[in-house]
Amino acid sequence: MTLTIHPVPGLPEIRPGDDLAALLADALARADLGPQPGDILVVTHKVVSKAEGAIALLEGDEEAAYRRLAAEQAVEILRRRGDLIIARTRHGFICANAGVDRSNAAPGTAVLLPFDPDRSAHSLRMALCHRTGVDVPVVITDTFGRAWRRGLVDVAIGISGLEAILDLRGTTDTQGRELKVTEVAVVDEIAAAADLAMGKAAGIPAALVRGLAAPCGEGRATDLVRPAGEDMFR
Amino acid sequence: MTLTIHPVPGLPEIRPGDDLAALLADALARADLGPQPGDILVVTHKVVSKAEGAIALLEGDEEAAYRRLAAEQAVEILRRRGDLIIARTRHGFICANAGVDRSNAAPGTAVLLPFDPDRSAHSLRMALCHRTGVDVPVVITDTFGRAWRRGLVDVAIGISGLEAILDLRGTTDTQGRELKVTEVAVVDEIAAAADLAMGKAAGIPAALVRGLAAPCGEGRATDLVRPAGEDMFR
Repeated sequence: MTLTIHPVPGLPEIRPGDDLAALLADALARADLGPQPGDILVVTHKVVSKAEGAIALLEGDEEAAYRRLAAEQAVEILRRRGDLIIARTRHGFICANAGVDRSNAAPGTAVLLPFDPDRSAHSLRMALCHRTGVDVPVVITDTFGRAWRRGLVDVAIGISGLEAILDLRGTTDTQGRELKVTEVAVVDEIAAAADLAMGKAAGIPAALVRGLAAPCGEGRATDLVRPAGEDMFR
Repeated sequence: MTLTIHPVPGLPEIRPGDDLAALLADALARADLGPQPGDILVVTHKVVSKAEGAIALLEGDEEAAYRRLAAEQAVEILRRRGDLIIARTRHGFICANAGVDRSNAAPGTAVLLPFDPDRSAHSLRMALCHRTGVDVPVVITDTFGRAWRRGLVDVAIGISGLEAILDLRGTTDTQGRELKVTEVAVVDEIAAAADLAMGKAAGIPAALVRGLAAPCGEGRATDLVRPAGEDMFR
């Protein structure tokens, strides 16, 4: 089935207290992208964090304040190199600087991760459903580095209306062989696909994915966190 | 810009020696997906490996033969748990069982990674250009696990006609702030996006990505391998 990914242009700069669902509904309508059943809305966490006020001032020496903030947001520091820390956040995500980010943030500020991105996704989904009459799953994304591979990719840090993982165990391949270990991180693939349409520098923080037979459900992005006991690379 | 991802149906089961470019060109034409300038063709490595004969027989005890084969294909074993090894391949990729895979393989066989997936991508691109008259970049994918995050995602293991990484360093964000460390693994995002359209169990091994302003160039997927000296998680 052909998949289309539409960037959602025209969102204003988001400020604390803004009604993100209302702004997204307006932007979708203006772009002739009124949600349809089966659509998935992908939003970068930055606009969610800004609307929720998850912004910190970097007072005094900005670099030092930024490093302090990242350390505060970390519940565990896995690696440290120069000013960079690879840390586990309270949500369980392992990422650079505990997800504290200054790109696309107002001067002198940094944007934190939403306090509970799965809950943020759920609230956004409910508010959009209320406004548009269509229940569209929501994926909130961030941009993470990876072990072993250079470059960053967008991943899901909050979801609502979807399973995080498409579990193909027990189904068979084209040879009739049972797929034993295939669990696809489908919401991470949705996040990556949406990033292609949004573009990092263009400042478009939302995309609508249409035509994907995604696994509906009530999963959480924290389902993607590999439990420490199963993780060979802590 | 709206991105569309078209699965390419109708490829036959691929056998060693098959002319994959000819089969893909036919399948694209039948699906009314004749390549256009700007398109990107994504192909799972499995059909490339099969066409190149990168298939091994699992003789005797299949499980034991499979484990032996995975160990042979590894140049370094990073972790071992039960029968699973996380290994570095000769290409530099770090993945489960050194990329040796039995899903969608004929009974009693396993599929290896192509010997040089970047070269395979280049050959496929040239042959397709010769047949269709359009020079379309090619991405060859595999399905990898990740440290810290559950579930598998498709990544690029061979490319031609693209840069592996979109380097945004030196450009500015919407606030006019210089993006300092943003290198996007755009070909990995392309691989993930294509997987959404193909689906693991459906057995569709190719997709055409249309509408993406991708970074043209002569990069290699091995550019994505983080040098051991820079890698904090070996």
